[in-house]
Amino acid sequence: MTMVTEFSASDHQYMQHAIESAALGRYTTAPNPNVGCVIVKDNLIIGEGYHRQAGGPHAEVFALRQAGSAANGATAYVTLEPCSHFGRTPPCADALIAAGLSRVVVAMQDPNPRVAGTGVERLRAAGIQVDVGLLTAQAEALNPGFLHKMRTQLPFVRLKLACSTDGKVALSNGQSQWLTGAAAREDVQLFRAQSCAILSTAETVKADKALLNVRSEAVTRLENGDIRQPLRVILDRRCRLSGHEPLFQQGGDILLCHAGPAEEWPELAPIQQNASGQVTRLRLGLDPVGQLDLKELLSLLGSRQINLLWVEAGSMLATSFWQQQLIDELVLYQAPLLLGADAMPLLKAGGLSQLSQAPRWQWQDVRQVGVDLRLTALLKTDTMSEQ
Amino acid sequence: MTMVTEFSASDHQYMQHAIESAALGRYTTAPNPNVGCVIVKDNLIIGEGYHRQAGGPHAEVFALRQAGSAANGATAYVTLEPCSHFGRTPPCADALIAAGLSRVVVAMQDPNPRVAGTGVERLRAAGIQVDVGLLTAQAEALNPGFLHKMRTQLPFVRLKLACSTDGKVALSNGQSQWLTGAAAREDVQLFRAQSCAILSTAETVKADKALLNVRSEAVTRLENGDIRQPLRVILDRRCRLSGHEPLFQQGGDILLCHAGPAEEWPELAPIQQNASGQVTRLRLGLDPVGQLDLKELLSLLGSRQINLLWVEAGSMLATSFWQQQLIDELVLYQAPLLLGADAMPLLKAGGLSQLSQAPRWQWQDVRQVGVDLRLTALLKTDTMSEQ
Repeated sequence: MTMVTEFSASDHQYMQHAIESAALGRYTTAPNPNVGCVIVKDNLIIGEGYHRQAGGPHAEVFALRQAGSAANGATAYVTLEPCSHFGRTPPCADALIAAGLSRVVVAMQDPNPRVAGTGVERLRAAGIQVDVGLLTAQAEALNPGFLHKMRTQLPFVRLKLACSTDGKVALSNGQSQWLTGAAAREDVQLFRAQSCAILSTAETVKADKALLNVRSEAVTRLENGDIRQPLRVILDRRCRLSGHEPLFQQGGDILLCHAGPAEEWPELAPIQQNASGQVTRLRLGLDPVGQLDLKELLSLLGSRQINLLWVEAGSMLATSFWQQQLIDELVLYQAPLLLGADAMPLLKAGGLSQLSQAPRWQWQDVRQVGVDLRLTALLKTDTMSEQ
Repeated sequence: MTMVTEFSASDHQYMQHAIESAALGRYTTAPNPNVGCVIVKDNLIIGEGYHRQAGGPHAEVFALRQAGSAANGATAYVTLEPCSHFGRTPPCADALIAAGLSRVVVAMQDPNPRVAGTGVERLRAAGIQVDVGLLTAQAEALNPGFLHKMRTQLPFVRLKLACSTDGKVALSNGQSQWLTGAAAREDVQLFRAQSCAILSTAETVKADKALLNVRSEAVTRLENGDIRQPLRVILDRRCRLSGHEPLFQQGGDILLCHAGPAEEWPELAPIQQNASGQVTRLRLGLDPVGQLDLKELLSLLGSRQINLLWVEAGSMLATSFWQQQLIDELVLYQAPLLLGADAMPLLKAGGLSQLSQAPRWQWQDVRQVGVDLRLTALLKTDTMSEQ
């Protein structure tokens, strides 16, 4: 039997509160999802918590600790279905049952096959009223990577682009620093910090001396005070990186992707100098046009707990992702200037003969970041336009 | 002596109301400015009005009529300095004095040299308290064309562009219908309706069978029920229009701009069939690259009461305006799709060798219009970036 649950205004308010709590963990929980929990009794919030770090307590545990024995008979608002399995921590469903909650409101079911409804069932079996499906879209937006990975086994691909108002990335002489302003560059730091991995190329590492790590002071730190550094995945088909690049001296782990057999790869000079993380080298196959196979890479990253991949490189890599339709979300910084016809275009290849062949995106969010705009768009599942 | 006036919260509220009233005339007042007036006594609005049509009563007159004798001792909020001269109607300053207002709050001084402070002086000389400078930026935004023309003798140039997210206007085969959605095309109608004149080219008229008139049902009508049709200015250097084009059958007046002496222009076939307006033909000089001289055109339009010019044509004309730095405002519809490197670019020329040479714009407004975005930007007077 399908029931449509009616939620009250205060249900909405408390779930909104739980969603805002969940978001506090956005820089630290990967590869775990962001989850928030609020416990309410007699219209008072008596406990709240959010999941902060994989391996640490879940949101429900923090909220229950704060509520103490008052949790008995109270209502819990949770942004994701409570877990029912023993992972690195005991199941939250059991903790809610043990605390004597009388009602649990859940924003959305957990698509993780180890949960997927069993958390709700377990609570209901214990006689708790469970209402599912409040502010689901907002709860989804907390965890694009986690949910996409659970559903497809592939990472959610978020492609960063930056261009002028006429879609140019650099002048004809190559000058591109700085097209966008300081605020946009700081904003990029926050996207990096929310990602499981950052994908770039040897060309970008060499040309821009890119570190591709998280350096923002605005980012929440882990419990030990460190910033969680996403894995940096560098496409280096022809082994052009020597190990001397600044990238190897700062940040966390690095996954270098090459072509050809490992015995042909030159030694990386100063691996021992990498102060911060491990360098792993990996062979990828080639796609039909002779580039490293992005689909193989995505499937491999998916199997390694990479839920959300931030792609930050030059036009060539962006074009490959675009041509193979591998982009889930565009994040485009648009600078308020026009560079003209001879400047360098956002994409390096074309070939469309009908407008209807171009996949349509759906604008998600537009805001001004310093002097620039930041446009965010998701790929429409229905690629037909409104015409 | 310069005094900074302190305005109360209710002053702000009533002026906001007057600004919203003023905006009701945005499709009908040209070439006059949009003005709103609210009359308040004992915290009650006892009269309100807006200027609807050149030659018709001013905002203050409508508001005073509604207030009647209660205006005695009341406060008036006016979005633009009341006029002090006899135009097609008697001076509003006199009407406010005669009605016995005790205070007049004015959002901004009128830069019209026939007013320019004399309206305020006249009120003050009559013993009325006059406070100037409340919500000035909002009041400015009501009349970009009128104010710009008063200050520079030139029309305010608002350039319409439409492109894909990567700055392309058509596929390599020329296909561009429809890049943007129906809502964006309807939105263009509203911009046309707010303009004194619409500038386009013979190429656009021929290729798109463009009518370039106002057809939107959403537009306020004139007092006689008609839609005010902006003057259509068509650049037709080589006399390619025959007079048979649909443009000549609908809409209002047309100004055709040619090169060379009038005796060399071919006759326009069916001028007598133009149901709606007059066709005027005009000779313009050529600029150094052999195109019709846009600066001469702007100065001529300025002298003909064209305050706000909406430029809606192809990339060539947009590029000429851009190269000559004649654009005051960009209105860019951006469709959520990527067309690739071989598609046709927004601008047809380039030549920048330093990013700092590109004038910086300032984003004014960004909103979603149907499936597309509409970005509005004004040229920054200080062209340096924030770097």
